[in-house]
Amino acid sequence: MVGAGQLARMTHRAAIDLGVELTVLAGSPQDAAVRAGARPVFGSSARAEDLRELAEGADVLTFDHEQVPPELLSELAAEGLPLRPGPAAKLLAQDKLHARRELEARGFPVPAFTLATSAAQIDDFAREHGWPLVAKAPRGGYDGRGVTVVGTPADALELLEDEPGGMLLEPLLPIERELAVVVARSVDGEARAYPVAESVQYEAMCREILVPAPITEDLAGQAQELALALTDVPGAVGVIAVELFVVDGGLVINELALRPHNSGHFTIEGADTSQFEQHLRGVLGWPLGSTQLTAPAVVMVNVVGPADGSDPRARLPRALAEPGVHVHLYDKAPVPGRKLGHVTVRADDLQTAKDAARRAAAILEGDN
Amino acid sequence: MVGAGQLARMTHRAAIDLGVELTVLAGSPQDAAVRAGARPVFGSSARAEDLRELAEGADVLTFDHEQVPPELLSELAAEGLPLRPGPAAKLLAQDKLHARRELEARGFPVPAFTLATSAAQIDDFAREHGWPLVAKAPRGGYDGRGVTVVGTPADALELLEDEPGGMLLEPLLPIERELAVVVARSVDGEARAYPVAESVQYEAMCREILVPAPITEDLAGQAQELALALTDVPGAVGVIAVELFVVDGGLVINELALRPHNSGHFTIEGADTSQFEQHLRGVLGWPLGSTQLTAPAVVMVNVVGPADGSDPRARLPRALAEPGVHVHLYDKAPVPGRKLGHVTVRADDLQTAKDAARRAAAILEGDN
Repeated sequence: MVGAGQLARMTHRAAIDLGVELTVLAGSPQDAAVRAGARPVFGSSARAEDLRELAEGADVLTFDHEQVPPELLSELAAEGLPLRPGPAAKLLAQDKLHARRELEARGFPVPAFTLATSAAQIDDFAREHGWPLVAKAPRGGYDGRGVTVVGTPADALELLEDEPGGMLLEPLLPIERELAVVVARSVDGEARAYPVAESVQYEAMCREILVPAPITEDLAGQAQELALALTDVPGAVGVIAVELFVVDGGLVINELALRPHNSGHFTIEGADTSQFEQHLRGVLGWPLGSTQLTAPAVVMVNVVGPADGSDPRARLPRALAEPGVHVHLYDKAPVPGRKLGHVTVRADDLQTAKDAARRAAAILEGDN
Repeated sequence: MVGAGQLARMTHRAAIDLGVELTVLAGSPQDAAVRAGARPVFGSSARAEDLRELAEGADVLTFDHEQVPPELLSELAAEGLPLRPGPAAKLLAQDKLHARRELEARGFPVPAFTLATSAAQIDDFAREHGWPLVAKAPRGGYDGRGVTVVGTPADALELLEDEPGGMLLEPLLPIERELAVVVARSVDGEARAYPVAESVQYEAMCREILVPAPITEDLAGQAQELALALTDVPGAVGVIAVELFVVDGGLVINELALRPHNSGHFTIEGADTSQFEQHLRGVLGWPLGSTQLTAPAVVMVNVVGPADGSDPRARLPRALAEPGVHVHLYDKAPVPGRKLGHVTVRADDLQTAKDAARRAAAILEGDN
């Protein structure tokens, strides 16, 4: 697995169950997956030699992030490295402009968009959609980084200076709700969707996941169908997380992740097969597992490094005293604003699960 | 953790969730827990220096087996090593004769027993209870090793020659059913019991665990009370597995394990808190987690190395195609008769769960 953060850490946990050996490309012995005991190859995901070394003796090469340069992936795929997912599919998660164009061409619902490289193009798009607009760096953003709401032509031009290749412009949509659908596809084409989640963002970072999303069955069915249809993209394999906006009662695609995703952490306790085991099954070409929920309602809340730099681990025993709370800590240094863990609660209804999960997360973050 | 087998492996998996660092005392880099990435100290659980080295920097020292010599544990406890459980409690799982005497003195139901060191003592016990008898080595046995059904005085005498300190004799009980109750105790005295399991043995090794055991509520309540009462033993902390026999409709204690136990593997998917996380919480003095089942019925079946020496891993994809099956493989060499993994199935009733779990185990063992 390229990357050694918390996603690799939790994938390692799933690999232990299956008796699978996971080797990770890590930047440091302090990386979360290395501290959990995944075998490290130290190096950079931007260096061909390091990726080749990682692939030695491996059945497949997969990813816990989207940061490998697309050109490098294509080069390695041409050399015969068993990349799963493949470069073409991965690019949908790496390049927002490419994803918009490709998905629009395939008939998927995407927001209006344009690539703006000049003041004139900005003006044209604004005339059609009005201010404010949303400007996105086509590559490199995650957790809201690289996404800016711009209110004036001057703001937009200033951003453009940092993006010589142009920036992706979209209207500021009247978003009613954000949804996330985690699906998985195995090498032989089998695909399965988990129940649709509502994703509650806070400061552009996913904070809470509520499952099943409190939406109509009809809309949930549409969201699952849409996400399953996306698995038909060439080279798509393993877990794919699809972020959707509900706008005017309909669905538009926001972003894809071609890997396990924060919006699927709830599956560890909340579904019959965790997204991490599912990802391993998918990329290894094994049968996929059941995606059924293990309780009527499941809520996951992220634990984020508090502003005072204190460590949630010191408050772990208090959080564990909350009934029904499952705590996952990533063994990371407590940098303010950094995702350090998450808690999951299963319950008979969303409100009960949400209350308990928020209480436990607040304890860990020192707010309680 | 002293020991690095599958119990340490699965404890490591639970330690990852909690952000706890687990170091294991291992005999070899091939030990199951080391292969899963637990930090190893290589050495022997019979050497004081190795145990001292393991304890360096650790908050607590706990165990995945019962094989540390009791005298050594007492010596290390006297030095101040944080042994959890403590030597007195651990001895109940290490010395069958001591356990019988101690538990009888505390008023717990145990089978009739005697320590026989001579032919005359064997005859006396046989006159009272009739042949055949069950002869047990007081120390060192597990999975049925060290336990022999003897039909004649000559058989008993032959065994006695190998046990100069004497052997534990018990009547061959008319066992109606074997039960297992996993309980946990935290340092502050909090104790919780999991639902009672039926333990189905085959060639003296636990093969299947059915939860909840198909017995009356009354008997299940008695079994849980009895197991919880056992946690009052001085120094008892962490998980305690209590094996019980149902004889003439009542309960007698067979054996204790002061550690996570095969009969508790079902808790990984089948209960709200796994026995491995529970053990960590208990020995670290943290609040215990919920012991509720996550489904009406849960069945665990062990995967044992097949006689032909073939590796269950080669058949893993086929086993994963069985719906609802959770496979755990321990990454151990496929020695015939060795426990190599287990499968767990949750269902609405025991029969459905048992059928599916047996089918998956049979596939892994190559019988299907």
